[in-house]
Amino acid sequence: MKYVSFEKDGRESYGIVRGDEVVDLGSRHGDRYPTLRAALDAGVLSDLAESGSPVVRLDDVRLLPPIPDPRKIVCVGLNYGAHVGEGGGALPDFPSLFTRFTDTLVPDGGDLIVPKVSHELDYECELALVIGRGGRHIPVAQAMDHVFGYSCFNDASVRDYQEKHSLPAGKNFHATGGFGPWLVSADEIPDPGALDLCTRLNGVELQHGNTRDLIFDIPAIIAYVSGFTPLSPGDIISTGTPEGVGFLRTPPIFLKPGDVVEIEVERIGVLRNPVVAEDG
Amino acid sequence: MKYVSFEKDGRESYGIVRGDEVVDLGSRHGDRYPTLRAALDAGVLSDLAESGSPVVRLDDVRLLPPIPDPRKIVCVGLNYGAHVGEGGGALPDFPSLFTRFTDTLVPDGGDLIVPKVSHELDYECELALVIGRGGRHIPVAQAMDHVFGYSCFNDASVRDYQEKHSLPAGKNFHATGGFGPWLVSADEIPDPGALDLCTRLNGVELQHGNTRDLIFDIPAIIAYVSGFTPLSPGDIISTGTPEGVGFLRTPPIFLKPGDVVEIEVERIGVLRNPVVAEDG
Repeated sequence: MKYVSFEKDGRESYGIVRGDEVVDLGSRHGDRYPTLRAALDAGVLSDLAESGSPVVRLDDVRLLPPIPDPRKIVCVGLNYGAHVGEGGGALPDFPSLFTRFTDTLVPDGGDLIVPKVSHELDYECELALVIGRGGRHIPVAQAMDHVFGYSCFNDASVRDYQEKHSLPAGKNFHATGGFGPWLVSADEIPDPGALDLCTRLNGVELQHGNTRDLIFDIPAIIAYVSGFTPLSPGDIISTGTPEGVGFLRTPPIFLKPGDVVEIEVERIGVLRNPVVAEDG
Repeated sequence: MKYVSFEKDGRESYGIVRGDEVVDLGSRHGDRYPTLRAALDAGVLSDLAESGSPVVRLDDVRLLPPIPDPRKIVCVGLNYGAHVGEGGGALPDFPSLFTRFTDTLVPDGGDLIVPKVSHELDYECELALVIGRGGRHIPVAQAMDHVFGYSCFNDASVRDYQEKHSLPAGKNFHATGGFGPWLVSADEIPDPGALDLCTRLNGVELQHGNTRDLIFDIPAIIAYVSGFTPLSPGDIISTGTPEGVGFLRTPPIFLKPGDVVEIEVERIGVLRNPVVAEDG
């Protein structure tokens, strides 16, 4: 199933996409479970899905990030060999991680913001997963049981800050983390380690990879992250980007106001974001 | 004034320390403002302080991190020249930042946890500030108007992860960020740029510095951070540690179960944390 979080008529809700409609679970169950994360926390989502909630048109809602309020967002850098190679570095011995603030998230259709203080905003297509069942020290062999679903992630990065200041600053500019359009539940993606993914900038493909080339695969990442921090339902882990990023091209490509970036992941869909200037 | 967050008889609250008592603001105003952060958000804290709330004994409460639920925790690395020097690096051109998850926070009296996966937990004494009034692109000249108060921070770090894996992993182990015991409001600290701070491990002083030696001072840090991310009431910024950290000593010193670490900052007080093993 495809799960979305959305806003309609000023009310935040969540539901299940069926064709061009959304089953509005929040309108019926929002008092007890106000968000998709709350329903995940309570472990009731599949019960709610069977409960006969009202339906709204997908065109009539404004999508939110599929999990608008995660407790943790962890991203993996340098996780495709060819991307490590284009940056000139050595293959990492351990997952190279950073974290994002929640307010970096931008839903499908939302604006990615080129900040005032830099023009070096760059795209990164990634497969993201969302935790369904929390845990600490999760063994590799059980890691997949902790995944609720998958989505597209655009880990857009401010490159001069990332390279010359500090990685966490370059990855935490407001409204730079495209996430969506929805979560596809894990049962619909039998092998998340064999998904094509790509970036298109104004219709031109600039990145293309496949998750089979992940250096640290999804079970390894979940086991590693849960070794230092407890994972909870709704936590987001984005798995890294393949080669073809803008700042390592000759000449470099950066996102400009007026651009449209699309991140497509096989079996999930397309995350589409216009680019605007911070004060525009 | 000294503001605390605390738990008493299973109820979370917040208040003002007066001698060996706490004015329990949460018991009177918790319905509208359930946390210290909520009262900061609403800008009502000074009104609440005048409202004649009931009093409890400080000994009868269990302290929580002064802000138990911050939206953002930003820490500055490499912000004292002598500490940069002991690490063998060059002085940074820009603040070197990382972020922490909320569940890394440990209150005064709480246990710092040596993780299962590493024995290299190390202390770092720091002055932390808490934002009272939010903002973006805050000018240096107005930055101090955005500070609510100050506290002690022990930015305890898992050094092998920090050095060999990635900085954000080494700084985000569960229960490694000592924070407290209370927030001292900014009006009681006329010059936060001239405060002695130190670390004592089992009573032996191992770090001693003064915030006058900060490479990036508090207004510069606030201006810089608010250049990439919006700041909100309750956000925590920790300003970096002076020289004397354990892992750069010969032989290295790491925190062991049974140790007691104290961080003292002039005009604020002492943050005291026992050290335990993760499964102990």
